[in-house]
Amino acid sequence: MAQSMSDITGVYATAIAAGIKSKGLDLGLLYVPDAVASAAVFTQHKFKASSVSYTQKCSKRYTLKAMIINSGNANAVTGKQGNIDTKAMATQTATLLGINPNEVGVASTGIIGKPLPMQVIQKGITTLCNQKEKKEGSRLAKAILTTDLVTKPTFKQAKIGKKVIQIAGITKGSGMIAPNMATTLGFLVTNAKMSQETLQHCLTKAIDKSYNMLSVDTDTSTNDMVVCFASGEYAINQYDPAQINAFQNLLDEACIDLAMQIAKDGEGATKLIEVQVINAARYQDAREIAKQVCDSPLVKTAIHGEDPNWGRLIMAIGKNHTLKINPDKIKLKLGSEIIVKEGQPVNIDRKRLKTHLQADKVIITVDCMIGKATATAWGCDLTKGYIDINTDYN
Amino acid sequence: MAQSMSDITGVYATAIAAGIKSKGLDLGLLYVPDAVASAAVFTQHKFKASSVSYTQKCSKRYTLKAMIINSGNANAVTGKQGNIDTKAMATQTATLLGINPNEVGVASTGIIGKPLPMQVIQKGITTLCNQKEKKEGSRLAKAILTTDLVTKPTFKQAKIGKKVIQIAGITKGSGMIAPNMATTLGFLVTNAKMSQETLQHCLTKAIDKSYNMLSVDTDTSTNDMVVCFASGEYAINQYDPAQINAFQNLLDEACIDLAMQIAKDGEGATKLIEVQVINAARYQDAREIAKQVCDSPLVKTAIHGEDPNWGRLIMAIGKNHTLKINPDKIKLKLGSEIIVKEGQPVNIDRKRLKTHLQADKVIITVDCMIGKATATAWGCDLTKGYIDINTDYN
Repeated sequence: MAQSMSDITGVYATAIAAGIKSKGLDLGLLYVPDAVASAAVFTQHKFKASSVSYTQKCSKRYTLKAMIINSGNANAVTGKQGNIDTKAMATQTATLLGINPNEVGVASTGIIGKPLPMQVIQKGITTLCNQKEKKEGSRLAKAILTTDLVTKPTFKQAKIGKKVIQIAGITKGSGMIAPNMATTLGFLVTNAKMSQETLQHCLTKAIDKSYNMLSVDTDTSTNDMVVCFASGEYAINQYDPAQINAFQNLLDEACIDLAMQIAKDGEGATKLIEVQVINAARYQDAREIAKQVCDSPLVKTAIHGEDPNWGRLIMAIGKNHTLKINPDKIKLKLGSEIIVKEGQPVNIDRKRLKTHLQADKVIITVDCMIGKATATAWGCDLTKGYIDINTDYN
Repeated sequence: MAQSMSDITGVYATAIAAGIKSKGLDLGLLYVPDAVASAAVFTQHKFKASSVSYTQKCSKRYTLKAMIINSGNANAVTGKQGNIDTKAMATQTATLLGINPNEVGVASTGIIGKPLPMQVIQKGITTLCNQKEKKEGSRLAKAILTTDLVTKPTFKQAKIGKKVIQIAGITKGSGMIAPNMATTLGFLVTNAKMSQETLQHCLTKAIDKSYNMLSVDTDTSTNDMVVCFASGEYAINQYDPAQINAFQNLLDEACIDLAMQIAKDGEGATKLIEVQVINAARYQDAREIAKQVCDSPLVKTAIHGEDPNWGRLIMAIGKNHTLKINPDKIKLKLGSEIIVKEGQPVNIDRKRLKTHLQADKVIITVDCMIGKATATAWGCDLTKGYIDINTDYN
């Protein structure tokens, strides 16, 4: 069996079916009692949920040691009662674990605009804290899901200095469904020891290359957050750039793995799309071009139709006039095949190209030929399944 | 019968089936021999078609007197041959009309990446110029279409000073289909007399409130242009702000009518969506919020499902953190019904709300309650029809 996050020394995870959803696991506890550092990134949505504001405030000044996480209800756009309920969840969990409420993060996902069913949640928290030292990482991976079809775990390790550093994580998300709002949550743990500042710095960089380069439907959630805990088993030498780099690479790898799993499980998706932009003038250009191509409904439907439609790619690349592009230099590849060179279509064997589109993962390379900047984005195709899920939920 | 653009004095229009498309009208001539002014706006796409570059250059320094327009082939991403062909179209038309090539604009729309069939086009231009004084505005409205289901004409008039000023126009566009790229074109004529500078100023303002507030699928075309001719029958007093304002309002009305017709005929669309943002802090905020709501796939699918989903509206309004919004003040209306007040959902009679969603035109009002800026955007619902059109075109 693949390793789960609770296989890391000092990391505990457990989950139950508390009754927030009509069935299935819906309340979980991630517990890292001896955490030496924690880091987190949050949605910038204007209507952020109270769990986001609360956890953001705590993680700025304290080292988080636990997350209490529910699915089935986002506790978003719930006014003052929402704030009271979030705080109550943190306080109860902290009391039962014998830690400070500021050391407990809260994450919620699911339906919005409805108050949390606090009675079942409070009962559930008691149950969870009574079994706080369980090692049920795989159950927790299930408990955070809403409309996802599959759990999304990751486990990476590498020798850094003389020790094997491990990073494990789970995530959720496949789009947004109303009245449910299936938001993106991610939780990571590492056995490394480092300062909170360094962990935050590394997490922010990793998220920028992974979750922030991900688009299922361009719609942003009120409840997004990714939190990372360091259990402190093995120290990273923060003054050795090689060690910090190695840790950053490992964390990037874990976050990209999680983000790609979300794109692959995008609502109605049948294909993962990866867009690699190379030789762009500026990093920001590379990022924007990669995201524009991933976001384009016409590119997404073309890929769904398995059509090597270079015209739509050109359209999606050129649509933002603020970016630096030389139309006469651009080169496009579908898989390993060149389809556009110096801005002009090359003679294409459409049948051979189609095989690149029949794969589960379609890789598009945009070579700007004017600089050195590189970025990669991930998305998925746009299908009738997406329309079904988001139209016919009544 | 409704009035067409060639009903305006001094305006001629004609169209033929030249054979660029497999069937139907595909080549047209708009001719305003005594035009006193012309104005135009163009796509900012990085891979703009040669017709765009050519017409843009001419309209900067000259007063256009004719447009030669073809559908069925966009002459985009066609390299040097594309430039040569565009110029050949203008030159031939100019010679046959006895005017300067710089006074002839060229517009092309249709498939991209393929050279124009110049033989049939040249034969067609000869035919058109032989019948240059025909008054076939309705035929021209048909000849510019690609994937559109209906023609999109407008005709507005108002007394300005002591004269009846008329503005008529036609447009096309319903999304983009590859290998066809159904781009947006618009052509307007007015019987007013004014300077080229004033006409350009008014057109730019009108486009900003109409075409630039329109979104079918967020994908931008390589061939977009809107051109306006003034035939000079009646003078507008340019030193009378009341007359200029009246003309601006009339032109706004005409352009908004055309833009709304495009949204209504959006690929696969069953409903027109109008989002009115009021009391925003800044004009730019009002515009962005209106467009964000129109563009959101989750809002578009909810409206298609006729579900009064305020959660998705809140999501779409708040997703850009750079805009000024106070979540605790926001008020939302669906048709005439308040659904969110001070950032919180009100008790909704879902059945009554559903009637607002069953209409062909769904109006959403976002009251920011923090300023005085206002903007309106138009879009359409997202349906399986869109997926069908853009996936299964092989």
